[in-house]
Amino acid sequence: MTRYERYADEIADLIGQQTLRPGDRLPSVRQASTQRQISPSTVFQAYYLLEARGLIQARPRSGYYVCAASVASKAAPAEPAPSQPPAGSTKVAISELVFEVLGAMRQRELVPLGSAFPGPELFPLPRLARTLAAGMRRMDPKRIVEDLGPGNADLRRQIALRYAVQGMKVDPNEIVITNGAMEALNLSLQAVTQPGDVVAIESPTFYAALQALERLNLRAVEVATHPRHGVDLGALQAVLARHRVKACWFMPNFQNPLGCLMPEQAKRDLVAMLAAREIPLIEDDVYGELYFGRHQPPPAKAFDRLGAVMHCGSFSKCLAPGYRVGWVAAGRHAQAVERLKLMTSLSAPVPSQEAITGYLQQGGYDRHLRQLRQALAGSQARALRAVEKHFPKGTRVTRPEGGYFLWIELPPSIDAWQLHRLALSHSISLAPGQIFSAGRRFGHCLRLNCGHAADKRVDQAIKTVGQLAGSLLAPPA
Amino acid sequence: MTRYERYADEIADLIGQQTLRPGDRLPSVRQASTQRQISPSTVFQAYYLLEARGLIQARPRSGYYVCAASVASKAAPAEPAPSQPPAGSTKVAISELVFEVLGAMRQRELVPLGSAFPGPELFPLPRLARTLAAGMRRMDPKRIVEDLGPGNADLRRQIALRYAVQGMKVDPNEIVITNGAMEALNLSLQAVTQPGDVVAIESPTFYAALQALERLNLRAVEVATHPRHGVDLGALQAVLARHRVKACWFMPNFQNPLGCLMPEQAKRDLVAMLAAREIPLIEDDVYGELYFGRHQPPPAKAFDRLGAVMHCGSFSKCLAPGYRVGWVAAGRHAQAVERLKLMTSLSAPVPSQEAITGYLQQGGYDRHLRQLRQALAGSQARALRAVEKHFPKGTRVTRPEGGYFLWIELPPSIDAWQLHRLALSHSISLAPGQIFSAGRRFGHCLRLNCGHAADKRVDQAIKTVGQLAGSLLAPPA
Repeated sequence: MTRYERYADEIADLIGQQTLRPGDRLPSVRQASTQRQISPSTVFQAYYLLEARGLIQARPRSGYYVCAASVASKAAPAEPAPSQPPAGSTKVAISELVFEVLGAMRQRELVPLGSAFPGPELFPLPRLARTLAAGMRRMDPKRIVEDLGPGNADLRRQIALRYAVQGMKVDPNEIVITNGAMEALNLSLQAVTQPGDVVAIESPTFYAALQALERLNLRAVEVATHPRHGVDLGALQAVLARHRVKACWFMPNFQNPLGCLMPEQAKRDLVAMLAAREIPLIEDDVYGELYFGRHQPPPAKAFDRLGAVMHCGSFSKCLAPGYRVGWVAAGRHAQAVERLKLMTSLSAPVPSQEAITGYLQQGGYDRHLRQLRQALAGSQARALRAVEKHFPKGTRVTRPEGGYFLWIELPPSIDAWQLHRLALSHSISLAPGQIFSAGRRFGHCLRLNCGHAADKRVDQAIKTVGQLAGSLLAPPA
Repeated sequence: MTRYERYADEIADLIGQQTLRPGDRLPSVRQASTQRQISPSTVFQAYYLLEARGLIQARPRSGYYVCAASVASKAAPAEPAPSQPPAGSTKVAISELVFEVLGAMRQRELVPLGSAFPGPELFPLPRLARTLAAGMRRMDPKRIVEDLGPGNADLRRQIALRYAVQGMKVDPNEIVITNGAMEALNLSLQAVTQPGDVVAIESPTFYAALQALERLNLRAVEVATHPRHGVDLGALQAVLARHRVKACWFMPNFQNPLGCLMPEQAKRDLVAMLAAREIPLIEDDVYGELYFGRHQPPPAKAFDRLGAVMHCGSFSKCLAPGYRVGWVAAGRHAQAVERLKLMTSLSAPVPSQEAITGYLQQGGYDRHLRQLRQALAGSQARALRAVEKHFPKGTRVTRPEGGYFLWIELPPSIDAWQLHRLALSHSISLAPGQIFSAGRRFGHCLRLNCGHAADKRVDQAIKTVGQLAGSLLAPPA
């Protein structure tokens, strides 16, 4: 961690414990520099970072002040309650609904509040294009027909290295490069299930998990999930006692759509609980790098001793959307996944792998990730303020510690599907709650993508959605 | 067609009808130029082309002569007999065997006679790398998160245009871009079947078709296939009468592994026969562009009036191996395939699509294809001569009119699996016959990849395989 990040974290802690309160003025740059014996530019960078995170704001010719929204005020929207899914398992038939939403989103002019990707302006696309060009220029032609199977060996080593930095020992040979995390997750699921099997998922859950279950004729059992701490292990225990669960598909880090983060001890307990029953965990960790805190949260895979966790990652949300490079570190299921990969799509694209390998080898990925995290933390703070200001009374909203989604629970009388249709007519896309469960529950919830660089159009769109939601409120009884 | 190609075809016809016979001397370049009133360079090019096709050869200071192997001599190996598969349908469990062969092939130093790809030296990789670089440099960043779903719109238009040149009307909207033809075929199969269904395949058939059936828990029924004319329609009729076939997966053009080409009328009849029973045809046409004759053979899709043919193509065998760009023109199943694609791997890689779109827009693809076809025709002729010379008596071999595979039927006492193991110990890969049917039949057959630029190592490897085969012959009774 750099000096300015450490200093910013210190101040953030003071704000968190309310030693510094909304409206308090921070020391001037000169004061802080003298007191702390750090350079003025370090202070500037720290303040800039805190501003990006939405904790402080500059007032012209006056200095930096702690923001009103920096701590949950009484007026701030409350957090949604933990979910209470039905106890039974169910067939899944949600795809039609999901496709309707995704299809509607595919118009270019929409403000993409329903999108699953951060804004493209946040990615180092020109530099990637250069490493891509350089890589393909100097590539040995033989590799174009040989790099099949599990994927580019250098890329698999680079990924293994990134695990090592987190203190995890992952053999490059258990890593299979895939066409994005979506394929990694699907192949993992197919590797450990047969049609008719029961799979445990979060509630609410990412719609692609539902679609994967539907495609493979699997049954879903939904597990109560806390909007801040993730899967409720007590509820999971009850589910495992009642159902013959063949696999779990969870997102312990910054879950889609809730943004919840399982505490480290809960991840440990989860892995142990599943290990005792020999149930594989398919871990979707595509947002793990997008943490706002001081340290990268470990995946559940970090606590896996048996090779039973299939850890799925991707460069699509952190570095190179559209390149379609993901992977799974599949533990003892690696060979099964590799074979399924060969059978379904042969191999991942050579040019994309080449570009990302080159980029990782050059260094600078961590610097990019730092910038990306700051941008996302800042845009989340902006979006939270806008929701607080413009959404109807009674709205609840998550405050994720990473990623770029807010989960918004509207007053119960508002139908999110109706709001989604209405927003479309205002050229705004939304992801209505109905597509995040097998039973079309969460009908008054929304997933809102706040991963965009500061953009008045986005601010205005959030305001518009809030106003539209207000217009859908039932009249007082 | 250019003037020199027309002239070359004239001479090829004379050789075909034996007006010109092996050993005959062709007119000198000067004579031909004067007689036909064409330039000497045109004559040279025509002769060069015929030499590449293996029909004539230059003798130093003497002129050009018709080759001994240009027509089937009495000494030349006979063609294999049509296959006679069992009548019943069967579950498929062949993957283990296929992976064993594919795994063994993955050592770099092998002479790749078992490979599924032509030699990388035959592709315009530097130019592709340049269009890739240029495309990514000037791409609107928004497209990196927007080009999801069915794929790059310009690429789909370019593919539709290539159909149009063949006289086929294919709407860009029925085209789904996939991660290679492998994914196109797999998604097509999944779109029209349920676990337990019966699917008709050729005998022998491409092992990936068997693996796809195995992965989706489908049953196979194999249809007798002629080594020159492809699927036997009489046999297919009998199969359709006996089984409730839910789909056919065939390769009417230069089938893998036989190289057979269904006559145009047979394609028409096939499409009509399936239409009458409302059975979809999954048409694998990845070699259709690699014809040695005068005209590109139409796919079965050309005779489809109902949108029941799912035509799968790819750039991996003709232009850009490793880029992983294929497609399916899926007719009335297009939406189902597009949705499956979204669910399994979201979308095809943007950089690869960009490179190929740019390449097609610039023009020059047809010129490249002409060169590739000439190279493959020439290398096939060389390989056939080597087989004739070095393989044991009683060996039969196909003479495909396109593609880059020979199917070799060895004397029945030779076990192709043993030969494959033996060849590996001589650093040569082979594709043994056992992996080309559900029942591990064709145990004395081989698929031999002859798609390599002139290379003494390849010539020597074919000779070695022939000698090894000879060493495995049973002693005379």
